[in-house]
Amino acid sequence: MITIKQLDKGLCSLEEIKTCGYREGKYGVTVIYHKNSTAAAVYTKNKVYAAPITITRKHIADGKISAILVNSGNANCYTKEEGIEKGLELAQLAADKLEIPLEEVAVASTGVIGRQMPMDILKPIAEKSIEKLDNSRQSATDAARAIMTTDTVPKEIAVESQLNDGTTFKIAGICKGSGMIAPNMGTMLGFITTDLKADKDMLHECLLKSVEKSFNMVVVDGDESTNDTVILMSTNTQVGDIDENFQEALDYVCMSLAKQIAKDGEGAEKFMEVECLGANSLTDAIKVSKSVVSSSLVKTALKGADPNWGRIISAVGYSGVEFNPEIVSISIASKTDEVIIVDKGNVTTYEDPKLLEKAEEIMKEKEVIIRVNLHEGDYSITAYGCDLTCEYVHINADYTT
Amino acid sequence: MITIKQLDKGLCSLEEIKTCGYREGKYGVTVIYHKNSTAAAVYTKNKVYAAPITITRKHIADGKISAILVNSGNANCYTKEEGIEKGLELAQLAADKLEIPLEEVAVASTGVIGRQMPMDILKPIAEKSIEKLDNSRQSATDAARAIMTTDTVPKEIAVESQLNDGTTFKIAGICKGSGMIAPNMGTMLGFITTDLKADKDMLHECLLKSVEKSFNMVVVDGDESTNDTVILMSTNTQVGDIDENFQEALDYVCMSLAKQIAKDGEGAEKFMEVECLGANSLTDAIKVSKSVVSSSLVKTALKGADPNWGRIISAVGYSGVEFNPEIVSISIASKTDEVIIVDKGNVTTYEDPKLLEKAEEIMKEKEVIIRVNLHEGDYSITAYGCDLTCEYVHINADYTT
Repeated sequence: MITIKQLDKGLCSLEEIKTCGYREGKYGVTVIYHKNSTAAAVYTKNKVYAAPITITRKHIADGKISAILVNSGNANCYTKEEGIEKGLELAQLAADKLEIPLEEVAVASTGVIGRQMPMDILKPIAEKSIEKLDNSRQSATDAARAIMTTDTVPKEIAVESQLNDGTTFKIAGICKGSGMIAPNMGTMLGFITTDLKADKDMLHECLLKSVEKSFNMVVVDGDESTNDTVILMSTNTQVGDIDENFQEALDYVCMSLAKQIAKDGEGAEKFMEVECLGANSLTDAIKVSKSVVSSSLVKTALKGADPNWGRIISAVGYSGVEFNPEIVSISIASKTDEVIIVDKGNVTTYEDPKLLEKAEEIMKEKEVIIRVNLHEGDYSITAYGCDLTCEYVHINADYTT
Repeated sequence: MITIKQLDKGLCSLEEIKTCGYREGKYGVTVIYHKNSTAAAVYTKNKVYAAPITITRKHIADGKISAILVNSGNANCYTKEEGIEKGLELAQLAADKLEIPLEEVAVASTGVIGRQMPMDILKPIAEKSIEKLDNSRQSATDAARAIMTTDTVPKEIAVESQLNDGTTFKIAGICKGSGMIAPNMGTMLGFITTDLKADKDMLHECLLKSVEKSFNMVVVDGDESTNDTVILMSTNTQVGDIDENFQEALDYVCMSLAKQIAKDGEGAEKFMEVECLGANSLTDAIKVSKSVVSSSLVKTALKGADPNWGRIISAVGYSGVEFNPEIVSISIASKTDEVIIVDKGNVTTYEDPKLLEKAEEIMKEKEVIIRVNLHEGDYSITAYGCDLTCEYVHINADYTT
């Protein structure tokens, strides 16, 4: 039995790490610094990917980095050679200040696509940010804040846990989300640190596993960004015999960050979890849960607190998964309550319309769980999402290039 | 050179056809009647499909029908045996009144999913509707109106054309769309009639071809409905040697109806066509154009008249199609004007920011064309869609079960 203890200090929970964040208007720069760290990363699957991804892929290839520099306000995407040069220029600035090789700086960007980086604005911000590098609570919060775009709250988490051999380790992370969130990591940046010593391949393997069931299961608007990056970086301070407890703690951290993203989706007022159970394969479970969580009609039903299960079964139906509609179960639940609306193909509300009223009550809650059991196999997964509101339209109709 | 002449009489353009439509509140019934017609149909690919589809598949299997009865207000979906019985009951009512066999009545339904059909409401409406059957302009309009749900305007078209052998023929159709419109025919009902004699296989083949490039290329919200049905019915009045002119005229009719659906998408204020050119295959062209036309961020950019081409290239990037971002071209156009923003990989607006202003002007128009040329191959297709507005959210958050 693994104990995961949540810490309330964010990135600064790892005493050896220094962080900073500084922003002016829509531009911000965050730096996470620890010399000679080991790191691995996962990136967007979008065929059009940003310059910082090209840079970071190269710099992180040997598994060794000492700093991560992230800027918000400009995605540095579709900016050709000039974009690479400017990304490297920012990385060089950090390298100079921190007296580390350029190749040990990973970079990431988020913001508008298709504009060259305004270096006259970003460089002074980066300088001011780096001047503040330390291990304080304030800097950890600043780091989480400086990477925000349309996020309304900073997103961070830190936990402490133990390996079976008794080694204590910590994992701390920050992320940003909000818009362009979907199928495979929207404009999703995540930076996770741990003090547990691990080689790059181990870090990569663990990160991939965690990302699959966390960040990859979040859908805000179905748009997959060009800049998604999640980096896992180890300071190698704690040495132990890595086991499944590390994976579990990392899962916990990634799931927490993923849920924070869904809850703070652009314009979101409500949060939903869509559990698909009894699928024939994990792929099927993912398809079904994502189809439901992505459906504009389910999202607006959530907004309107309407237990419109017809939209749910329809989204299951067009998910592309083979299943038998005659044995499906669907329920709408909160943390404490559950109404089974379709029970192995039988619509319970046909006989007891009061159940629909009860489901309506649940739909009014801030957090709603939609549970779909295909009764076909043993695979299950949960997708995370939010409602579709007018505010989403406002944010994205007015967020100018 | 084929001449397609548009007629302004709707379904009643075919003198031998009788139609009617009658509605009370949210329920309506439309009937299209011509004894001994030949027909073929295309249906939703949703695994969960409605009772009327089960009935119509069976009745239309031999290619012979005499009437189509459509009800709005209830989708008769996920209603089990009771749904089939009630669908047949409505069909029987029409069969009795029209003195035709039950098996010659095709049915279709649209409305809320997961409620049993309120026969006490629908039967009197069906009776009142059928009493009005005739070939008048009024009845043709009523027929287009009675199938509407959240549609704001009736959708109809009629054309006259000629085969190469000189035979004149007509095609007339009505449809409904609005919400749950996407990948493969949303809550899309379409009823198309022609006087040109054709066997059921020929009708089916022509219909499939037309549907692929029309109804299947319309995206409103990405939700694929459980009830989609398009029926093509021939009165066999005109006899000629069927050639490609019939296909072309049918394409014209289907494309017109499809565009009417996109323009009247739930809450839509603006219409867009997304042309994908230079694709390596038709499948690729479809994926790219649909990815762009479905993107919530492109839809909100259209709403906000924001020439945010970064969102367009991002949607191309996550379409799942292999292409080289370095040779892509993207332009934003109206019927009379065009701004090339990305020219074979080069962003023209980096050098000439005024082009962005010009693109902004075009984005302000009611109808906008987004053109993506992959410069990879020779395949192209156009997808049709609309903007995402607050009104869409209102309609679907408040449209109660």
